[in-house]
Amino acid sequence: MIEYYDISGCYILRPWTMAVWEMMQTFFDAEIKKMKIKNCYFPLFVSPAVLQKEKDHIEGFAPEVAWVTKSGQSDLEVPIAIRPTSETVMYPYYSKWIRGHRDLPLRLNQWCNVVRWEFSHPTPFIRSREFLWQEGHTAFATKEEADKEVLDILELYRRIYEEYLAIPVIKGKKSELEKFAGGFYTTSVEAFIPNTGRGIQGATSHCLGQNFAKMFDITFENEKGEKAMVWQNSWAYSTRTIGVMVMVHGDDKGLVMPPKVASVQIIVVPVPFKDADTQAIFDACDATVNTLNEAGFRAEADLRDNYSPGWKYSHWEMKGVPLRIEIGPKDLANKQVRAVRRDNSAKIDIPMVNLVEQVKDMLDNIQQNLFDVAKHKRDACVKTVRTWDEFIEALGQKKMILAPWCDEMEVEKDVKARTKGETGAAKTLCAPFDQPDLEGVNCFVTGRPGKKWSYWGRSY
Amino acid sequence: MIEYYDISGCYILRPWTMAVWEMMQTFFDAEIKKMKIKNCYFPLFVSPAVLQKEKDHIEGFAPEVAWVTKSGQSDLEVPIAIRPTSETVMYPYYSKWIRGHRDLPLRLNQWCNVVRWEFSHPTPFIRSREFLWQEGHTAFATKEEADKEVLDILELYRRIYEEYLAIPVIKGKKSELEKFAGGFYTTSVEAFIPNTGRGIQGATSHCLGQNFAKMFDITFENEKGEKAMVWQNSWAYSTRTIGVMVMVHGDDKGLVMPPKVASVQIIVVPVPFKDADTQAIFDACDATVNTLNEAGFRAEADLRDNYSPGWKYSHWEMKGVPLRIEIGPKDLANKQVRAVRRDNSAKIDIPMVNLVEQVKDMLDNIQQNLFDVAKHKRDACVKTVRTWDEFIEALGQKKMILAPWCDEMEVEKDVKARTKGETGAAKTLCAPFDQPDLEGVNCFVTGRPGKKWSYWGRSY
Repeated sequence: MIEYYDISGCYILRPWTMAVWEMMQTFFDAEIKKMKIKNCYFPLFVSPAVLQKEKDHIEGFAPEVAWVTKSGQSDLEVPIAIRPTSETVMYPYYSKWIRGHRDLPLRLNQWCNVVRWEFSHPTPFIRSREFLWQEGHTAFATKEEADKEVLDILELYRRIYEEYLAIPVIKGKKSELEKFAGGFYTTSVEAFIPNTGRGIQGATSHCLGQNFAKMFDITFENEKGEKAMVWQNSWAYSTRTIGVMVMVHGDDKGLVMPPKVASVQIIVVPVPFKDADTQAIFDACDATVNTLNEAGFRAEADLRDNYSPGWKYSHWEMKGVPLRIEIGPKDLANKQVRAVRRDNSAKIDIPMVNLVEQVKDMLDNIQQNLFDVAKHKRDACVKTVRTWDEFIEALGQKKMILAPWCDEMEVEKDVKARTKGETGAAKTLCAPFDQPDLEGVNCFVTGRPGKKWSYWGRSY
Repeated sequence: MIEYYDISGCYILRPWTMAVWEMMQTFFDAEIKKMKIKNCYFPLFVSPAVLQKEKDHIEGFAPEVAWVTKSGQSDLEVPIAIRPTSETVMYPYYSKWIRGHRDLPLRLNQWCNVVRWEFSHPTPFIRSREFLWQEGHTAFATKEEADKEVLDILELYRRIYEEYLAIPVIKGKKSELEKFAGGFYTTSVEAFIPNTGRGIQGATSHCLGQNFAKMFDITFENEKGEKAMVWQNSWAYSTRTIGVMVMVHGDDKGLVMPPKVASVQIIVVPVPFKDADTQAIFDACDATVNTLNEAGFRAEADLRDNYSPGWKYSHWEMKGVPLRIEIGPKDLANKQVRAVRRDNSAKIDIPMVNLVEQVKDMLDNIQQNLFDVAKHKRDACVKTVRTWDEFIEALGQKKMILAPWCDEMEVEKDVKARTKGETGAAKTLCAPFDQPDLEGVNCFVTGRPGKKWSYWGRSY
């Protein structure tokens, strides 16, 4: 899916990966266009004066910013930053474009690359120095409209994970410590990787409140003729999504691609025998591919004559193709094909007359089964605790820990300090929107009355 | 369409522009996928060692390369370049991935941003320090396959200009002096801007020959078991296309958008009078928009009550919307709408029952008329010359000059030196594939036997 690159922390996204990205992009782009959000493109570069305008924001990003200081042989007069995210790139222009209430809402999105020169363990997809994402930046007249959009977008992110990538996620709100630098509040979808016992932030939808509006002077004349500040959101998902998919579904044989995002959903492999009519088998493979493609599936035949069927099986299993169809002399004689599922290795013979119908059922079934299995594994990792000792025990067992706490930033800092290990410290993942009862429950750290239940764990 | 940015040479592409870009992208992406070309994404950054591997190539690009030398507060050990184009980014991996003849052809494309830190007169779309483009990079076993693809892609570029942007272009081959740095030969589509009397390179499709293959060791074992070098192409078109559209079709009132790429093809404006039933007119506008949208057109109504119809006419004319529909009390009574063309101001009344059919005809007609008018103007600028004096006279008249010459690099350098002016020197635009007769014709500069006809002119 990727190739390592000669600059550390940068990776090459090969076509197998880009196809997944493009399928998610097609879905999301169409959905936001329905919401009247429009695409635009702002520059890659940010001038230092603008970048530093919002203090908390720049504190959050400064250590990771890459700086251009030279062009050709000449030093630039002023170094120029590469966007780590585009709030400060865009908002001076929002200030210019927004004058009256009729200019609102302003809802823009861009598909682009961003650079965060991280030094901690670059990992393909999950933590790379350059990545692809969409970033939406919107401005509203009222908090209510902004609040609503935050959740509308978060629901799209849930759908990307659950409906496309077959990965269960939890919707919730980030703690004060973990929220977006300079924002008002952050919501996210959170996934969990059972194998490594670590949580992973899937995508974030932030309400920025009026903080950036204040710094960048984004005001408008409201219907009463008064000057007012806009309410803003920003929201993003990145190629990290693909990394979560790889980690959640992959197995010993390699990748497992959910049918909805697999660039090849069905690979057709001829299985000729010495005395068989090879050409007839190859023709049957081509015919099968054509039938499936015409029915709207993404199918290909692997007719290479320098590899054995067994080699091809392993090859396409490794690449994660959801369904393999084998056609040999017996299948030809019986007017059937043999279908083998990637997710559970189940094999069934499909009469050619039922091909399209049964393949559709099998792909739907694989998509659902991948989600169900992932959810079962994830749920098995969730542990509810109420005391520090239980918390530490669950952390040792690499659980995703649901615990009541007092929701104070100092307490989360304390937990991080006390749990710091090689793979990072435990921290809050999110406070799920779906909250268990808090009645009579105390903070697992301080013993003070519990203010909310949050998921805790080590994370990527 | 754009907004100037606080870093010189960088521009903001607003939604009106991005929609044009996306429409061209949808066309081109689907066409190359039919050709089995796949999308990928390579990093933004290049290490200096790799960048400098192909000598002619780096000489061509070195002065414009932007360098990252710092991240956060730390100096990088080695400065890292931002891609001005991706040959040197990609080809080390082509070398790795291509082993045998079965790995060929390798045909990849990416949609991305590139940076060329030019110091000469940044101009929106035409010459910007960062721009968006697609870049295709392909490798073949034989020269014949590479040659064929060069022309297949060039034909797609012609279609973008002529069928989508309604701009006539000339297909041809670049001179040795003007070809791609490090390439074998370059083909291009060339447009001409009558108002400024300057040519503009529309898009390029290069055959790189085996030059990069040699430098990056991209070899394969052919069917006879021998080691051979691949033949490579690279080809690109950029957001410059949009700039050409603006310059070719724009008039005193503003932009003129060809219907095929206009994000709004039809703007519907209510024209209420004091005593008219305003609500009925607004309803008719909505109904008209719905009918048109359902028929597959991109139509919007401008129902703002704080602007007059006249203000709205000017506003949408400035934005270049191809067709305006006005609905007033008389139209309502007569069950008709009034349609006004942006390209020639022609007005006609359309009975509501014929709405979809007539709007379709009018948009088709506008698209064709824009092309015809642009071609007529362009053709009127073409001047055929055979002597230096005729050449200088035509250059003074800002013509696109077709002249026979001896096709020697020193001669083109000489012409450039002798014609150097404030808006650049005259140079070859291309040698058109469609060549006039060369029989008995001599070079307009040296008087030696003419080897080819080329277009010459000042250019962007």
